[in-house]
Amino acid sequence: MNSSAARNLPLELPEYEKPNNALPLASFPVSMAFPPPWTSSSLALVALALLTALVIRAMLFSSKKWDPRGQHCFITGGSSGTGLALAVLLVQRGAHVSIVARNGERLAKALEMLEQHRQTSNQILKAYSFAVDSESGSAAALNAASKLHEGRCPDALFLCAGASAPAFFVDQTEEALKAGMQMTYWAQAFTALAGTKEMVKQGVKGRIVFVSSVLAFFSIVGYSPYSPGKFALRGLAETLHSELKLYGISIHIAFPATIYTPGYEEENKTKPKITLKIEESDGGDSPEAVATAILKGVQRGNFHITTGFLGELFRSSAAGASPRPSYLLDIVYGLISFIGLPIWRHSVDSTVKAHQKEHREYLRAQGLVA
Amino acid sequence: MNSSAARNLPLELPEYEKPNNALPLASFPVSMAFPPPWTSSSLALVALALLTALVIRAMLFSSKKWDPRGQHCFITGGSSGTGLALAVLLVQRGAHVSIVARNGERLAKALEMLEQHRQTSNQILKAYSFAVDSESGSAAALNAASKLHEGRCPDALFLCAGASAPAFFVDQTEEALKAGMQMTYWAQAFTALAGTKEMVKQGVKGRIVFVSSVLAFFSIVGYSPYSPGKFALRGLAETLHSELKLYGISIHIAFPATIYTPGYEEENKTKPKITLKIEESDGGDSPEAVATAILKGVQRGNFHITTGFLGELFRSSAAGASPRPSYLLDIVYGLISFIGLPIWRHSVDSTVKAHQKEHREYLRAQGLVA
Repeated sequence: MNSSAARNLPLELPEYEKPNNALPLASFPVSMAFPPPWTSSSLALVALALLTALVIRAMLFSSKKWDPRGQHCFITGGSSGTGLALAVLLVQRGAHVSIVARNGERLAKALEMLEQHRQTSNQILKAYSFAVDSESGSAAALNAASKLHEGRCPDALFLCAGASAPAFFVDQTEEALKAGMQMTYWAQAFTALAGTKEMVKQGVKGRIVFVSSVLAFFSIVGYSPYSPGKFALRGLAETLHSELKLYGISIHIAFPATIYTPGYEEENKTKPKITLKIEESDGGDSPEAVATAILKGVQRGNFHITTGFLGELFRSSAAGASPRPSYLLDIVYGLISFIGLPIWRHSVDSTVKAHQKEHREYLRAQGLVA
Repeated sequence: MNSSAARNLPLELPEYEKPNNALPLASFPVSMAFPPPWTSSSLALVALALLTALVIRAMLFSSKKWDPRGQHCFITGGSSGTGLALAVLLVQRGAHVSIVARNGERLAKALEMLEQHRQTSNQILKAYSFAVDSESGSAAALNAASKLHEGRCPDALFLCAGASAPAFFVDQTEEALKAGMQMTYWAQAFTALAGTKEMVKQGVKGRIVFVSSVLAFFSIVGYSPYSPGKFALRGLAETLHSELKLYGISIHIAFPATIYTPGYEEENKTKPKITLKIEESDGGDSPEAVATAILKGVQRGNFHITTGFLGELFRSSAAGASPRPSYLLDIVYGLISFIGLPIWRHSVDSTVKAHQKEHREYLRAQGLVA
């Protein structure tokens, strides 16, 4: 453990985390009564001032991109899909990369691929087989990965571990729902916990990147074992985005839509037909495209990261108090969402209702109704 | 079990759930490229048409309020706080009420109170002692409550079970985080699961009401054991709002802010000082006020239910594709949120950063840093 680093802990924030003087510092009047005493012209003025401040801030941001070169990046779910694609990108950008997954064989193959992208001979590229869905498993994986870095914990955690097993709610059991939470939430939450404790102990002002899903902004039939965990990740990221400012640790969370991976093909085999039908017009992204979008978002310092136009629509209309990548663009996205999403939802609801008869046959076949 | 009811299962939807012909039925063009080919005047026209449709819909809604009279309402967490306040309101409106909680003594007292509000001699008012944070516990409680109703499952489930134990993330363990999820998420999810299975089996077109928190729209320092579970409830409600249209079961979810209950005083004893400081200007509501708002929302058929102006600001800016209680009002709320919430968040973030030094002392005292 690096005790001199620990002594410097959170007294100095990274440049982009410092309070921006261009932003009004006034506290929001939480107790104000409705209707608010604002005229439309004063609202417009405040909006204009805020937007100007945010544009200036966005411009400052872009000149201070995070550079992964020489940083130690720790990637769970790193042997395939988005995790592996991120690992390749980070190796290409000169980072030290540790990938973690369960399957030793797949890890070995993935490590071979990383070696092909090596930029310099002193880049440390390693693969570790651990189950990270417990705090002890995550801590053991982090400790193993820290050994070749003089005990220093990783600078960036990319939490890509997870899986999905959509099914009807009436087919769920206590065990199935808990297994869903394990795959979607705990598989990332415990690595964040073990990683945060190490970063705090060592005074490392690192970054933690969660990979949630666009299904953390809304949900549809079939995702009761999945959406709750992906929403939970968003809740954890919201808390930590506030709390880890105590230590100068940055939090990011990505919300990809459909990703064409082996896992996606696996989940489609058991996915309810009605869910498949709703998704059929969706399209999807390659793991490489998703990884590129995530890394770009992290480098820019964005908290919420989406990977396409539809993702932006759902994000912009559900961001609430969370920082937005661009306030100007979100006015456009927000307007389109406000009009388009109710129409989209209405069409999805109609599809579900039209499925009632067929679903009744399914229930009879399963012996769930007489 | 009522098998004649089961035969009628989901072929007929309640009136307010039928597709509204005034709403455009077009499917949202999910694959459209950015920038969209819409001019601002066509956007405005679509917006106007949509708003007119939604206003008409809202007017239709209000004439078909749900009436709890003669309905069997099943309330978890029903011996105190919001659950008990809801029970009293429902008794006053002529419902049969079953309250469920763990503590037998508190249940007996609560039942005495309900008896004082009895409207007719044939109202069935009962209290049951069960732990509902498992599927089997929830199923047992539902079965017990169904016995006095000829085996018919309740018409409405009000899921008020839950507790909060805020603390710093670095103080969490695997057990503590899992206990948090148990108190916030599983305590309601498993009753929803057991209840849905019974409603589907018996063909009861009931309603399920989750009680989440305004901390499912955002979060702040201290809530890592709480916000993830409350976000998860929102994810489950989103899924079920879509999926249970297959059976004509309605889903509602409430997002109260601070409620002055014995539980709130308990949680404040261990709440981090910085969290208390951020909340000090917040105020709060009585359980009665929260229960009144929830029942009003359920009766109106609202999916998302908030309990105050601040709740409306967070909801309107985070609703995404979820149905809004009023699209017209949400334009106003949304505008205020878009301007006000970033300012509020900036002020909270500044408070957290200003706490770094004091927090460092706390970490030293806990032995978490050298």
